[in-house]
Amino acid sequence: MIRKYEGNPVVKPADVKPSIGGYHVKGALNPGATECNGEILLLLRVAENCEPKKGFVRVPTYRFDAGPARPDIMEWKADDPSIQLKDTRGVVFRGQDYLSTMSHIRLARSRDGFHFTVDEHPFIYPADETEKYGCEDARVTKIGDRYYINYTAVSQDSWATKLAVTKDFRTIERLGFIFHPENKDVAIFPEKVGGLYHALHRPNNSGFGRASIWYAESPDLLHWGNHRCIVRPLNTKWEAMKIGGGAPPIKTKDGWLVIAHGKGEGSLYSIFLVLLDLEQPWKVIKRAERPILTPTEKYETQGFFANVVFSNGVVEKDGELLIYYGAADESSCVAVTRVADLLNSF
Amino acid sequence: MIRKYEGNPVVKPADVKPSIGGYHVKGALNPGATECNGEILLLLRVAENCEPKKGFVRVPTYRFDAGPARPDIMEWKADDPSIQLKDTRGVVFRGQDYLSTMSHIRLARSRDGFHFTVDEHPFIYPADETEKYGCEDARVTKIGDRYYINYTAVSQDSWATKLAVTKDFRTIERLGFIFHPENKDVAIFPEKVGGLYHALHRPNNSGFGRASIWYAESPDLLHWGNHRCIVRPLNTKWEAMKIGGGAPPIKTKDGWLVIAHGKGEGSLYSIFLVLLDLEQPWKVIKRAERPILTPTEKYETQGFFANVVFSNGVVEKDGELLIYYGAADESSCVAVTRVADLLNSF
Repeated sequence: MIRKYEGNPVVKPADVKPSIGGYHVKGALNPGATECNGEILLLLRVAENCEPKKGFVRVPTYRFDAGPARPDIMEWKADDPSIQLKDTRGVVFRGQDYLSTMSHIRLARSRDGFHFTVDEHPFIYPADETEKYGCEDARVTKIGDRYYINYTAVSQDSWATKLAVTKDFRTIERLGFIFHPENKDVAIFPEKVGGLYHALHRPNNSGFGRASIWYAESPDLLHWGNHRCIVRPLNTKWEAMKIGGGAPPIKTKDGWLVIAHGKGEGSLYSIFLVLLDLEQPWKVIKRAERPILTPTEKYETQGFFANVVFSNGVVEKDGELLIYYGAADESSCVAVTRVADLLNSF
Repeated sequence: MIRKYEGNPVVKPADVKPSIGGYHVKGALNPGATECNGEILLLLRVAENCEPKKGFVRVPTYRFDAGPARPDIMEWKADDPSIQLKDTRGVVFRGQDYLSTMSHIRLARSRDGFHFTVDEHPFIYPADETEKYGCEDARVTKIGDRYYINYTAVSQDSWATKLAVTKDFRTIERLGFIFHPENKDVAIFPEKVGGLYHALHRPNNSGFGRASIWYAESPDLLHWGNHRCIVRPLNTKWEAMKIGGGAPPIKTKDGWLVIAHGKGEGSLYSIFLVLLDLEQPWKVIKRAERPILTPTEKYETQGFFANVVFSNGVVEKDGELLIYYGAADESSCVAVTRVADLLNSF
């Protein structure tokens, strides 16, 4: 039993104030989620492009040259011979790439988990050249009194996963890259098992197979090793292209419950479940063949990238499990269920 | 002053006994190198395919199904409708990839560093599904009385770096993946700096830039973090495609001397130098713009993959530096120089 909230989306691009004048919010998607001081917090990925200007090519960028890092607009005359238009990703100017959209992480706050107010300013945004093309898809894991936030840093060196930590969602300490390129979909377990921290991750696979869910362990959350590929895509229409982890695993009596995603035929994204052993989290106990959530609603089947549901944040509240998810790479939604229902759904 | 040994190659494919009858040695290349008990050891990458058989398609494979892992030959009638011929990499049979060549690591031994005897049997070879498509390009770092060997494990999950350790090159303990896919060209520093182990590595970059040399650190050689991209390719003909590290860095009075490789125009591989700070090895002191070794000799400009020189092993002996290198992805060679000469060459 899983129910998509009838008021979805809970955050739309129109709810988000642009970072600066001249930026336009295209997406408020793929929210990390947690609870802090009685508030449910979403860590939205906010994707922005530039308001069009006739006769000009404009792209968002970040400047790190003097003073604090800050968003800016690069603008060239459309007939400037030095610019090359690329695919939808952006333009190249004198050998330097500029993307058509730029992402940062923004907080949205709610008391009930369904009605959100979006902060006015970015929370995590590109701070240096290693994040020049954006900060994407945050996950939050609370361990003790600290919230560990991992996110995808995109740069000329490709995409990889960084870690940051906060106690209060006001200040943040950056802890550097924990998984080198090319790796995303990192989900850190909320407690140590066998004296070590654990995470799921999703390295690229440009070789003979398809990208899969990997496992790693760490003595300190900073250094990771003992990598193992633990879940590979099934030969189904739901997982034809690749799979990856989602939200931080949920501890249940039966095992670690993992909310994962599949990219299937026609690039359709859906959400499925995996159950891992409590003591040996690299061991798969059960693995669902069919998804629990697929794109069916208009806000999921139409948008910036149609036919996507993608979860990287869940919150347990009053006996219910709130599964937050990005819809159509454009908005943020919630589905309501119970852990017991998910365990029974395998 | 650097001199290619006039007796090159020091190991050719014909010097290597095939793993099993029916295998044919195509390459004895990219040697890791170290000194142990007065012997110079090369850790050759031995690449084998199958002797042709008329009317049949044959590829090397490893079996892990019963008993110890062992090499074997897959053979199908050439007109079997279930097999699909791929590019030179091999065939697909019922959805399973088989490669045309398979690599393992073999030891070669020498007293003088120039005349080698190749062991009869493989030293490191595919042990399970995570190495099903081969073990490639070993590097050896001696730390204390142990020799740490990292190598590229290739499988359906792509290519990544594993670690193993030995004291005597007779028995070996496998320590698992230290860098997840897609990563190779890992070179571990021979001592701790600032209380941590250090390594160079080379993640894939399928994004906006070109594959570059990264740095990482570890408390225990097993868990790695604080990844940083420290050397990116220059816009020269030598580094047009990508770069990567080579042999374990050499400690000198001026800094850590790194032997790296560039893949340039026309897929030509050459060898160049980088000097890193002794105390902060992620800081580049100097970086050569021109290579110290390029393919010039027939054994380098002709072969399995023409125009390649690629070093992943060096040995200091009697005041000289022996740079072992793979030539044309086919044989193993040595060039002789002195550390002081290399430091003066920047």
